[in-house]
Amino acid sequence: MELLKERIRRDGKVKGTDVLKVDSFLNHQMDVELFQEMGKEFKRRFAGCEVNKILTIEASGIGIACVAAEYFHCPVIFAKKSQTKNIAGDVYTTKVQSFTHGKVYDVIVAKEFLGPGDKVLLIDDFLANGAALEGLARLVKDSGAELVGAGIVIEKAFQPGGDRLRAEGLRIESLARVKSMSEETGVEFVD
Amino acid sequence: MELLKERIRRDGKVKGTDVLKVDSFLNHQMDVELFQEMGKEFKRRFAGCEVNKILTIEASGIGIACVAAEYFHCPVIFAKKSQTKNIAGDVYTTKVQSFTHGKVYDVIVAKEFLGPGDKVLLIDDFLANGAALEGLARLVKDSGAELVGAGIVIEKAFQPGGDRLRAEGLRIESLARVKSMSEETGVEFVD
Repeated sequence: MELLKERIRRDGKVKGTDVLKVDSFLNHQMDVELFQEMGKEFKRRFAGCEVNKILTIEASGIGIACVAAEYFHCPVIFAKKSQTKNIAGDVYTTKVQSFTHGKVYDVIVAKEFLGPGDKVLLIDDFLANGAALEGLARLVKDSGAELVGAGIVIEKAFQPGGDRLRAEGLRIESLARVKSMSEETGVEFVD
Repeated sequence: MELLKERIRRDGKVKGTDVLKVDSFLNHQMDVELFQEMGKEFKRRFAGCEVNKILTIEASGIGIACVAAEYFHCPVIFAKKSQTKNIAGDVYTTKVQSFTHGKVYDVIVAKEFLGPGDKVLLIDDFLANGAALEGLARLVKDSGAELVGAGIVIEKAFQPGGDRLRAEGLRIESLARVKSMSEETGVEFVD
């Protein structure tokens, strides 16, 4: 998606060789008009898939998922990262390793919102090692729902998550696939 | 907002006298078409305020804030609850007590996204004790931006946050104000 790649080139900040800061428009400050264009693009790519639920994970996937869901005309579920007293016991749960935060956390979805007959699209802002996406895919599988695929905003294609999950049969549509990046030369995209 | 009150009456679940579970449409599964109606209502109430930034806090405020921002044509900033390596050091920070999670956490906004000249609307899903909203208001004040007010989806008007913050001069617009609730009689609204 050219609009997104241009925005990453203009406003993304590369730190070292593996941190891409896009917090001016994607995951701290959020440009909702860009999100609308991304939502339309996800809808175009997953047209005809009869998606009836979008599943994302807190926190930075939520805004993108909600705006995208307006084009799919379906609700969003966001998986929670730890059990709070406001979620009852009847939940799907799995463990996910966060490389950003350097810890393992529980990911939880209430059973009442996901089950057989649902056609689920995963949406998240980043795909790198694939741990979060893999966890969400497990939750969908556990629920008996059908996993349609995953819509990702930025895939770090030089990290192993995308290749591994595609090899396992997951359809992944990434709006920008980063081939490599450095502080000197900036971001280079696949294609 | 009658549509919201009807939804709370129909799908909200009261636990004891102070927990209102609305996770089927507001803060776990999210009904984005309802969010659109709430966004329009916030825009109607804050029309003419020249809001140019919406500030919310992760996680459950993000979806509502993003959909609302489409009607304000402005970006959303979500305050983060703990420092991650992807946020640089130059941040506004304050401490907030979470009654839901029973702990105190740091709330952080990068300085580059908020400052003098900004007109900021706070948006959040719940207002009860007011700790989160008060923390966000402090961050706006620290930044030198103008605080236009706060748009809240559900205010527990029987808890002290709303009255205290209004007394301090904050304009708060709540779409549904709960006067009292119980497992036997359900939810009663103010007005």
